Amino acid sequence: MRCLRGTAPSASGPHMVDGHISPDSTATMTAGQLLREDPQPCRHSPPALHPAIVPSYPPPESDADESWVWSQIKAEAHRDADAEPALASFLYATVLSHSSLDRSLAFHLANKLCSSTLLSTLLYDLFVASLAAHPTIRAATVADLLAARSRDPACVGFSHCLLNYKGFLAIQAQRVAHVLWAQNRRALALALQSRVAEVFAVDIHPAAQIGKGVLLDHATGVVIGETAVVGDNVSILHHVTLGGTGKAIGDRHPKIGAGVLIGAGATILGNVRIGAGAKIGAGSLVLIEVPPRTTAVGNPARLLGGKKGDDMPSESMDHTSFIQQWSDYTI
Amino acid sequence: MRCLRGTAPSASGPHMVDGHISPDSTATMTAGQLLREDPQPCRHSPPALHPAIVPSYPPPESDADESWVWSQIKAEAHRDADAEPALASFLYATVLSHSSLDRSLAFHLANKLCSSTLLSTLLYDLFVASLAAHPTIRAATVADLLAARSRDPACVGFSHCLLNYKGFLAIQAQRVAHVLWAQNRRALALALQSRVAEVFAVDIHPAAQIGKGVLLDHATGVVIGETAVVGDNVSILHHVTLGGTGKAIGDRHPKIGAGVLIGAGATILGNVRIGAGAKIGAGSLVLIEVPPRTTAVGNPARLLGGKKGDDMPSESMDHTSFIQQWSDYTI
Amino acid sequence: MRCLRGTAPSASGPHMVDGHISPDSTATMTAGQLLREDPQPCRHSPPALHPAIVPSYPPPESDADESWVWSQIKAEAHRDADAEPALASFLYATVLSHSSLDRSLAFHLANKLCSSTLLSTLLYDLFVASLAAHPTIRAATVADLLAARSRDPACVGFSHCLLNYKGFLAIQAQRVAHVLWAQNRRALALALQSRVAEVFAVDIHPAAQIGKGVLLDHATGVVIGETAVVGDNVSILHHVTLGGTGKAIGDRHPKIGAGVLIGAGATILGNVRIGAGAKIGAGSLVLIEVPPRTTAVGNPARLLGGKKGDDMPSESMDHTSFIQQWSDYTI
Amino acid sequence: MRCLRGTAPSASGPHMVDGHISPDSTATMTAGQLLREDPQPCRHSPPALHPAIVPSYPPPESDADESWVWSQIKAEAHRDADAEPALASFLYATVLSHSSLDRSLAFHLANKLCSSTLLSTLLYDLFVASLAAHPTIRAATVADLLAARSRDPACVGFSHCLLNYKGFLAIQAQRVAHVLWAQNRRALALALQSRVAEVFAVDIHPAAQIGKGVLLDHATGVVIGETAVVGDNVSILHHVTLGGTGKAIGDRHPKIGAGVLIGAGATILGNVRIGAGAKIGAGSLVLIEVPPRTTAVGNPARLLGGKKGDDMPSESMDHTSFIQQWSDYTI
Amino acid sequence: MRCLRGTAPSASGPHMVDGHISPDSTATMTAGQLLREDPQPCRHSPPALHPAIVPSYPPPESDADESWVWSQIKAEAHRDADAEPALASFLYATVLSHSSLDRSLAFHLANKLCSSTLLSTLLYDLFVASLAAHPTIRAATVADLLAARSRDPACVGFSHCLLNYKGFLAIQAQRVAHVLWAQNRRALALALQSRVAEVFAVDIHPAAQIGKGVLLDHATGVVIGETAVVGDNVSILHHVTLGGTGKAIGDRHPKIGAGVLIGAGATILGNVRIGAGAKIGAGSLVLIEVPPRTTAVGNPARLLGGKKGDDMPSESMDHTSFIQQWSDYTI
Amino acid sequence: MRCLRGTAPSASGPHMVDGHISPDSTATMTAGQLLREDPQPCRHSPPALHPAIVPSYPPPESDADESWVWSQIKAEAHRDADAEPALASFLYATVLSHSSLDRSLAFHLANKLCSSTLLSTLLYDLFVASLAAHPTIRAATVADLLAARSRDPACVGFSHCLLNYKGFLAIQAQRVAHVLWAQNRRALALALQSRVAEVFAVDIHPAAQIGKGVLLDHATGVVIGETAVVGDNVSILHHVTLGGTGKAIGDRHPKIGAGVLIGAGATILGNVRIGAGAKIGAGSLVLIEVPPRTTAVGNPARLLGGKKGDDMPSESMDHTSFIQQWSDYTI
Repeated sequence: MRCLRGTAPSASGPHMVDGHISPDSTATMTAGQLLREDPQPCRHSPPALHPAIVPSYPPPESDADESWVWSQIKAEAHRDADAEPALASFLYATVLSHSSLDRSLAFHLANKLCSSTLLSTLLYDLFVASLAAHPTIRAATVADLLAARSRDPACVGFSHCLLNYKGFLAIQAQRVAHVLWAQNRRALALALQSRVAEVFAVDIHPAAQIGKGVLLDHATGVVIGETAVVGDNVSILHHVTLGGTGKAIGDRHPKIGAGVLIGAGATILGNVRIGAGAKIGAGSLVLIEVPPRTTAVGNPARLLGGKKGDDMPSESMDHTSFIQQWSDYTI
Repeated sequence: MRCLRGTAPSASGPHMVDGHISPDSTATMTAGQLLREDPQPCRHSPPALHPAIVPSYPPPESDADESWVWSQIKAEAHRDADAEPALASFLYATVLSHSSLDRSLAFHLANKLCSSTLLSTLLYDLFVASLAAHPTIRAATVADLLAARSRDPACVGFSHCLLNYKGFLAIQAQRVAHVLWAQNRRALALALQSRVAEVFAVDIHPAAQIGKGVLLDHATGVVIGETAVVGDNVSILHHVTLGGTGKAIGDRHPKIGAGVLIGAGATILGNVRIGAGAKIGAGSLVLIEVPPRTTAVGNPARLLGGKKGDDMPSESMDHTSFIQQWSDYTI
Repeated sequence: MRCLRGTAPSASGPHMVDGHISPDSTATMTAGQLLREDPQPCRHSPPALHPAIVPSYPPPESDADESWVWSQIKAEAHRDADAEPALASFLYATVLSHSSLDRSLAFHLANKLCSSTLLSTLLYDLFVASLAAHPTIRAATVADLLAARSRDPACVGFSHCLLNYKGFLAIQAQRVAHVLWAQNRRALALALQSRVAEVFAVDIHPAAQIGKGVLLDHATGVVIGETAVVGDNVSILHHVTLGGTGKAIGDRHPKIGAGVLIGAGATILGNVRIGAGAKIGAGSLVLIEVPPRTTAVGNPARLLGGKKGDDMPSESMDHTSFIQQWSDYTI
Repeated sequence: MRCLRGTAPSASGPHMVDGHISPDSTATMTAGQLLREDPQPCRHSPPALHPAIVPSYPPPESDADESWVWSQIKAEAHRDADAEPALASFLYATVLSHSSLDRSLAFHLANKLCSSTLLSTLLYDLFVASLAAHPTIRAATVADLLAARSRDPACVGFSHCLLNYKGFLAIQAQRVAHVLWAQNRRALALALQSRVAEVFAVDIHPAAQIGKGVLLDHATGVVIGETAVVGDNVSILHHVTLGGTGKAIGDRHPKIGAGVLIGAGATILGNVRIGAGAKIGAGSLVLIEVPPRTTAVGNPARLLGGKKGDDMPSESMDHTSFIQQWSDYTI
Repeated sequence: MRCLRGTAPSASGPHMVDGHISPDSTATMTAGQLLREDPQPCRHSPPALHPAIVPSYPPPESDADESWVWSQIKAEAHRDADAEPALASFLYATVLSHSSLDRSLAFHLANKLCSSTLLSTLLYDLFVASLAAHPTIRAATVADLLAARSRDPACVGFSHCLLNYKGFLAIQAQRVAHVLWAQNRRALALALQSRVAEVFAVDIHPAAQIGKGVLLDHATGVVIGETAVVGDNVSILHHVTLGGTGKAIGDRHPKIGAGVLIGAGATILGNVRIGAGAKIGAGSLVLIEVPPRTTAVGNPARLLGGKKGDDMPSESMDHTSFIQQWSDYTI
Repeated sequence: MRCLRGTAPSASGPHMVDGHISPDSTATMTAGQLLREDPQPCRHSPPALHPAIVPSYPPPESDADESWVWSQIKAEAHRDADAEPALASFLYATVLSHSSLDRSLAFHLANKLCSSTLLSTLLYDLFVASLAAHPTIRAATVADLLAARSRDPACVGFSHCLLNYKGFLAIQAQRVAHVLWAQNRRALALALQSRVAEVFAVDIHPAAQIGKGVLLDHATGVVIGETAVVGDNVSILHHVTLGGTGKAIGDRHPKIGAGVLIGAGATILGNVRIGAGAKIGAGSLVLIEVPPRTTAVGNPARLLGGKKGDDMPSESMDHTSFIQQWSDYTI
């Protein structure tokens, strides 16, 4: 994503997005690819790192995203450690003493989530082993970092997200819990969920399926139930609930399509489908299906309609302008 | 509640409830009694423990609920410790090394709520002494465990609730704070409230009166004011506020009847009465009295009406079908 | 504020407020002055401290507020330590061993916000130095204490607020982070924000401008964005969001006038102005400008109208009756 | 012991000791009794507590020693907390918030000996239960406090010993470990020994039999083996070893008679008997039996002889003059 | 060492040792081999584990010692966890949750040696990586466990040594520090030395060369200098110093031959050679070379002479009888 | 001290010392002055820091020693942090984030000596205030650092001593306790002594008078009594006792002259005077006065005689050769 470095690339095809991700095309492209192909100026250009610190080459192709992001994070941490001695110890402990992004993340999560009865070394072991064994988690972590960096105007760097965003950290812990759940190590998965709910006030059931490139902004109070599915590149603000209805016990939670944006305090209940690229207004109560690229607002929510004519394959490109239009209203 | 053990009882009278509790009859029956008389298949049958681990006899009469639940918890913890060595240390520390449920709970709460200035040993002492001196707290704790186990589809065991549900833990701490408040040990009661608000993000005033068999599901952000009353067998989702209005300073918070269900994000303000068996929709703002067995939804809330003809003694039986009907809408 | 001591002063000028603050006049008066001139009986009289403990002289003029409040806090802590030995260690550590309010606050914040990678001594150093260098922060802290004491019926003393109110503590930490942000020490400011968001579940961007005499009641889930401005004497309940809209990246958050009251769960989005003395109903979604002394309620919010004729200088007096009127509805 | 309060009693019999204890008579008298009968001026008079703080009545008879010492400790702690606010939190946590000496001791030991894998609450439980069940431990604890107070010129108060003397604390922990060992709870007893060895650098095997009124002065490096016996009123300086010889595996450690004084760095090896009232010079290496009231010095130790004529019952009175004589040389 | 399992092997050659190790033959044999070939009854037979818990097969050949010892440790820990619930959490955390001896050791050391500025996860990483990369450390660890178990009558099991012997733990930490030192990571090696000196009161310079099968009994106060060499199968009691002399700065510390026994409090200074199988009496001060199989005692030490005729190859077998003879005197 | 930087100065006066300090002249010269004037090659030349890191100018005159040493420490810490990322967090926390040596020391001591009942922030406050108020403590700290660096061959840098030498840290804590004792804040002084005795196994009474330029090498087990006096530039090895005799209660501990060297395990008892420049052999037991420049060895100690004719001004030169001669024997 060139705009991350503040450079303006040349021409680009008609399907380029304005700093955002096409929900439909993400099945075959990584978030990193999409972001890097972006020919338009970013909605907001992140503060540029000093060229002496951060090399100006574009991030390499997707499979190298991890090392590129990791090198960015280390450059940022070095810059901040130099500028702020009071924070240097923290930055060395969490970032600069580690050989890779996943070990840094494992260390940081272990020290955040440990308690007097769940020791940090045990959690560290668990996170290191899980991240090492599951490259897809690591790829999703990178996609989440890129998502926060490009979508959140208040995100001033990858290290800022890695170290300070409790929504980001909660999701990464849930990814590990999800693997444990799938391995039928449910007691441990639930213990992890419980610690995340206490430490970050984010309560995501280990069985929930969370895509990549997901942003939990602010994150306090987010609740996502057992059978919920959250697609790639979804953005969820704080106080959002993806909950069940009382009567069902099986598949009873919402299915959120790719690229959906859910405003602060929105509550979506039941096994309803929120179509790709849809937007849910802040404070809305949604109990019904929402078609793709459609906006739902209010309590109870009503549909504002989407762009009906956009059913061509390229319509996914509309996603960004869509967000702009919609964000006039509620995000 | 036989379904807790996966057995299907034979016939049952017409007044049996479907896994839920009659709000009106709870004054004279314990939650355990009600649950055990339940002749219907559970809405959801909890995963059965292996018969070699958990004896299959029905839980004894109510005064023995505590020991029955405690034996279940220990059996679950043994099973999980055997299956998951990484969690065994945690399970022995919190459950298996203790001689009774109240000591296990006291240990767990003390280690969760302690801080650098409120040492765990001090809190442990306080909880042990309070629980030993007040059998009614212990009984309410047991009722809460049964409530979570039967009402929350995501609750996979009593130990899951005891160890991981911050709503459950917050209520138990409040019960102790409530006793301290009544003993005019207000500074200590308020310090306890403050720790619970920080650690669990659940803010219940020590003076609030909380019944038994209460479920705080997810619990993040629940606020319950000083003069609020919450009846037996109430279920409250996360982000629920039982608040005051600005003008009053005396009795200024809601009174929630038995068996009421309050959906996520609902806000009930002022000294209003929510009748037994009523349901408050998710995201609703309630400033008015809600009659028994009536549903209130919306911002501001409107009443959907209950079943007016149901004023016979048996009407309490309607409670469950009521929940089903209502949960189509909002929980 | 005489009512804090339960004494009824004699005459008072026509512009006196009923226990609340004129938003317009606060530019030239401190919160303490206003409160002390208050000739009317308080809405609620705080529990009186025993005369042998707390001297009955009125608090001196504004520049001495800090020492007066500090002496009150120490008197309260002494009383509580004597009455409750179990809490004495905590009270000596946090209050009675300190020579001034700012050192007590620095100690308390450092021990609350520290983590395994951000040591308490480092944070203590930071808070002590920041509070020493910025008398305006200290004055605002005092104003916040007075605000909580006079406006929150559940606040039983200054020490109760200092020690137990996570909203109060979150604001004080943000004031220090704000100074760091202004000094371009942004990495440290953001790390502080992150710890506050985790520990108190209150997420206020360091760049946000927060006035004095601000009350965050209950506080869980409050989110205040980067370019938000909160005027003096504002009261904000829990779950309130002062957020941005998706499209903007510059000045994109609400501007809250002096004396505004924002009910629980209200969401205000975008660079909109909420006029002085306005009231935002609980659970409201506000996307539009709200004129001074106007009430906005609902999702989306509609204006209930204010008192249009009140545009004389004395109109600020209406503030309190306003709150009473409005609070019939929603706070 | 009246000298503890700085008063000079009138006449006294010929067998009175000068602030020290007759080794032979201790079988039937408590340390407290002996100390109280002491008619002579103390070798050193402890700093007197202010009469307004500490009542001047003599300590009651032996079975009330515990409450008398406990009241002294609380008076001292109150005095120090008042004089030194920086220490008040510590004193309230360790002493003033507790209802009895044994709970104070249990709290203090638990917080000293706990580790990340042996939680303080677990240890606290263990110590509280053990001390409650074994009055003889509590009596020995009191005798140790009296011993330190009367024999160590640097001991300025009972609370000084209780809170700061690692030798005292190590012995009390060993007493509890000894009970566990006797109950065949050996793994726990050994874990306790290990923590004491790490925290206090005092290594006493749980099986060793330690009398009462024992003083471990400075204590660093003391090692006492499995089959060692230490009589009543023994004083042991730092770096003392009561060790085994390599060849034996059964009863292989020294037996120290009552009233023995062992100087710093002395090493006593093998199943040898050190007679009552004997003195072992600092730095001595003792491999042989030492008769009662005999002094052994040197490496290897030679006997300096005792007072051979003193074999009347009253000889025990010689103990003190003996120490004086001997201490010219080595203690 | 068959006696560890209580079985009596049949015949054995004339060179068999009585539970002890020939210093000369250790170059080509592992400690485990020697121990297993031992045909004589042990000097002390360790308490036998119940046959249902510990399989009775002999430990396999030397390269499998590690797994055999690890299986013993786990069996012991299981037995103790079952018998002592209060210790079960500790035993699961330190032993039973780990997949190998080196991970268990790394965990235990990390949690013992960590501090507020050296986090346990960092140390854990360091120990895990070092032990994984250096099989010779792991082999030496196993030899040390076997040494403690066979030589120390108070050692009731391998797990007892692993978990509770600070001498054992100090040596293992030094082995890792030694590797760091050799890799020129001296600052880290010295930081480790410092933590060991504080936590265990054992001060061994990272550059010192320590053989395998070494026993530090009690260990408090042991000091071993930078250029010291300690051979295989050496036993060192507490308070032993292997120090330098003031004048030299290069190779200035003692060289201790294989199988040497150094009694409590002995001080050996300067670059002197202590021959294989020599014994240094407790409390001795040694400034001179001590020939093999010779005993040195006293301050200053004099040589007691060895068995001069024993210069046949089999003389090494004399090692044990030697210890017996000598231990009459000083160990 | 030029030798610290490996440069050979030109001529020097006849009173120059060979890397050691003249005991007699220290009354009027600082340790730094003496060290810097030293014209002879150091006994051992400390490893030179890379010239790009450490400027090669000689340390300025004595009043600037503190800043020179501090700049050295920071240079060393920077070098180590760069070379060893695993240690960087530790080095930034303890050294590089601090603005001065005394704040670094205060931080380090506070985090080492804190406990669950004596919080690090409290101790930090105490140390910062004490060091700020007492420049003589700070000067003595600097002299101690210079002493360790020049006298201990194993000391590879000032930061090594500051961070890792428990003897150094114990002395600095005692200096603060000594000030508290003088201010009659005895309870706090004794609490500090107790923590030092536990954490560092070094037990120095707060009332003891300790000179500057003192080296406690290894330090484990050092005990220094209430009325002891230790002169400037004294070196004390581990296990050394400066104890009292049993009979006295007033001034009862040794007085150690300037420049004395006390070997490991030496025990000096009673109010005896050890003359300037004397040497006490390792393991000696000293009960008698030792004249200046005399060596005492043995148990009990006998005098080896000094150089009686050396009472010219140049005798101070003998100090070093003295040590060499003597150290053939015992240090």
